Amino acid sequence: MKIANKFSLSLLFFILEIMPKLSSKATQMPSSPIRKLVPFADAAKKKGIKIFHLNIGQPDIETPPSFLNAVKNADVKVLEYSHSAGNISYRTKLCGYYKEYNINIDPSDIIITNGGSEAIQIAMMTCFNAGDEVIIPEPFYANYNGFSTSADVTVKPIRSYIESGFALPPIEEFEKLITPKTKGIMICNPGNPTGYLYTKAELNALRELVLKYDLFLLSDEVYREFCYDGKEYVSVMHLPGIENNVILLDSISKRYSACGARIGAMISKNKEVMAAALKFAQARLSPPSYGQIGAEAALETPKSYFEGVKKEYIARRDFVIDALNKIPGVFCPKPSGAFYCIARLPIDNADKFCQWLLEDFNFNQQTVMLAPAAGFYSTPGAGHNEVRIAYVLNTSDLKNAVTCLEEALKVYPGKTI
Amino acid sequence: MKIANKFSLSLLFFILEIMPKLSSKATQMPSSPIRKLVPFADAAKKKGIKIFHLNIGQPDIETPPSFLNAVKNADVKVLEYSHSAGNISYRTKLCGYYKEYNINIDPSDIIITNGGSEAIQIAMMTCFNAGDEVIIPEPFYANYNGFSTSADVTVKPIRSYIESGFALPPIEEFEKLITPKTKGIMICNPGNPTGYLYTKAELNALRELVLKYDLFLLSDEVYREFCYDGKEYVSVMHLPGIENNVILLDSISKRYSACGARIGAMISKNKEVMAAALKFAQARLSPPSYGQIGAEAALETPKSYFEGVKKEYIARRDFVIDALNKIPGVFCPKPSGAFYCIARLPIDNADKFCQWLLEDFNFNQQTVMLAPAAGFYSTPGAGHNEVRIAYVLNTSDLKNAVTCLEEALKVYPGKTI
Repeated sequence: MKIANKFSLSLLFFILEIMPKLSSKATQMPSSPIRKLVPFADAAKKKGIKIFHLNIGQPDIETPPSFLNAVKNADVKVLEYSHSAGNISYRTKLCGYYKEYNINIDPSDIIITNGGSEAIQIAMMTCFNAGDEVIIPEPFYANYNGFSTSADVTVKPIRSYIESGFALPPIEEFEKLITPKTKGIMICNPGNPTGYLYTKAELNALRELVLKYDLFLLSDEVYREFCYDGKEYVSVMHLPGIENNVILLDSISKRYSACGARIGAMISKNKEVMAAALKFAQARLSPPSYGQIGAEAALETPKSYFEGVKKEYIARRDFVIDALNKIPGVFCPKPSGAFYCIARLPIDNADKFCQWLLEDFNFNQQTVMLAPAAGFYSTPGAGHNEVRIAYVLNTSDLKNAVTCLEEALKVYPGKTI
Repeated sequence: MKIANKFSLSLLFFILEIMPKLSSKATQMPSSPIRKLVPFADAAKKKGIKIFHLNIGQPDIETPPSFLNAVKNADVKVLEYSHSAGNISYRTKLCGYYKEYNINIDPSDIIITNGGSEAIQIAMMTCFNAGDEVIIPEPFYANYNGFSTSADVTVKPIRSYIESGFALPPIEEFEKLITPKTKGIMICNPGNPTGYLYTKAELNALRELVLKYDLFLLSDEVYREFCYDGKEYVSVMHLPGIENNVILLDSISKRYSACGARIGAMISKNKEVMAAALKFAQARLSPPSYGQIGAEAALETPKSYFEGVKKEYIARRDFVIDALNKIPGVFCPKPSGAFYCIARLPIDNADKFCQWLLEDFNFNQQTVMLAPAAGFYSTPGAGHNEVRIAYVLNTSDLKNAVTCLEEALKVYPGKTI
């Protein structure tokens, strides 16, 4: 009888398909803003249409041989855990790399992470309580939303505008957002998705604000190798007197075109922050060993590699910005860093347009995939007629991609001119 | 005047060393239970004392050539991001690996993670809200505490005892702990740190409980290759009717002695769970590429490799358990899995004893480093006279290590017999 009852219970659960409820953050967690377009891209490819991918920041640049050969020639017998903060040999040499950018740190100021992503995650868990507020100029890297949701942190977006090339909003606008729950400001410099490079004056204004309200200042500077037109790269690590407030978030993914290595870094002169961050790092044991071997060797990459890469990106940028601005109704400010730009298009809605490009359009059996900019804004409705373009293809492909866009804008049913 | 004021403000902050407060979880985050002993180990080494490390689960077994050669020979030009859920080729072949253990899944049931650690983190964020309770039989893998703190989840320990070899506590004891906040049960099978292998009857009892209260059942089964004495490995994936409740947490770290690869997996037949987990996985972009290349190739590792490894661990276990139990006052149940055991020693306090072993003791210039078991318990005071021993050294080193322990117990000032 008892067995029969148990069986009935199981059967009942099976029939009703009762199952435990997911967490609220599992529901709130945002999907990748580009992901919903993937099925349309797949369908277009099946129809034989060539797609130019300007939607993702996966560079086509080759990883330096120094990196690849170090992995190839690594003498590994037992692939052991590394130190939770990363190999000391790598962290020591990394200090030399930062010194060239006038960032003076020692190995204990560094924790090597599983990509820049984990640096953001650990920094957020170290600094912010559930319900704390972080001010982030928008548009911002879409995954900041995901990491904030994971950490139960509330993002307070502060709008920057395409008309000013996405310059830092006035400090008064930041002050308006500050509440007793405000614990930090987060920036990306040079910026993804804007390509904007903050000036010394803008960073000094942030410095004053951080001091005044005693906030953490988290700065994602993974694109520092990609600053153009002789403009100065100013790191938050250069700002005097806020050493205990500043956390630098870094990654080698773009620097060495080594996105799959999953090697990033969380850096701070605040000893208390680093001691706490190390506890989070210890819980997950260690960052990847092969990635560290490659990244350490890549520190020897000759300057000529970076000069070549930079020259290539400048050529791509100059072509793309010029070509975009020549299309009637298109406006695209010229970025000074990273390899993205945001363009405003003469369309009703970028989400619809980007889907239409894949679903209903082709020009000589070719089309282009773009990232609708709305996914990079937190304010509803913002950026609805903007797209992010990653100029990560060679100039010849970029030319074809822009031609597709130009032709598409002539015939798109939702065009506004 | 305005500038002078700003300057004074900065100066004031500087003098007072005001700095933003860390999060509560940064403070609550537990340190690694072994870490506090490291300075003592370093000091002993400086004095020329050889230390046998039985304190960590870093195997000395060589990583299979299939893994290492695949990385060496990988034809990489651009080290790109992989799919956020891991390479489809790897996930497809991995289904074949699980099939041999009678676990029937398809690639969409798998997300490849940054080690088993990230599998636990993503599973917790997917299933549990802040304040939710998870029941975990103790002693348990110490980092479960860290991941729970990260996720704001409350661990409700349920005591298992050395006298019964750390068998599953009676189900009535579980039921006593269940509250409206209880959302899941987490187990490790075969167990770290106990080496206990749950029987089919024990797992069926958990199954009933999970069904009755509609709980998630998270099971860390990273030691499935290490089951001894012909005892049956039963996975939570084998339990019928709770497919939507079960999440398997896995890692290749121990399977292929490839801890530094940082390749794990989160597996579930619950489509809603996997869809949500994928959003967390997308936010951090992808697992490491080289680790995946190695892990995919390692699936071809011949059975003889595992047979050799298993034979070696059985020899080590048999030696260690026998030798320990011969020491007066020592009790150590014989584990059926993994490569750990917990021994009760005739001492006042294992934390003090383990420090003393490094600081004040040597036998022929040798000593042994052990992990105090208290760090694996959540109940204060539990396991105070127990240590975890990882038998990850060759038998000759193990012999010397046990001799050190035996000699130490003769002279330790806090001995109880």
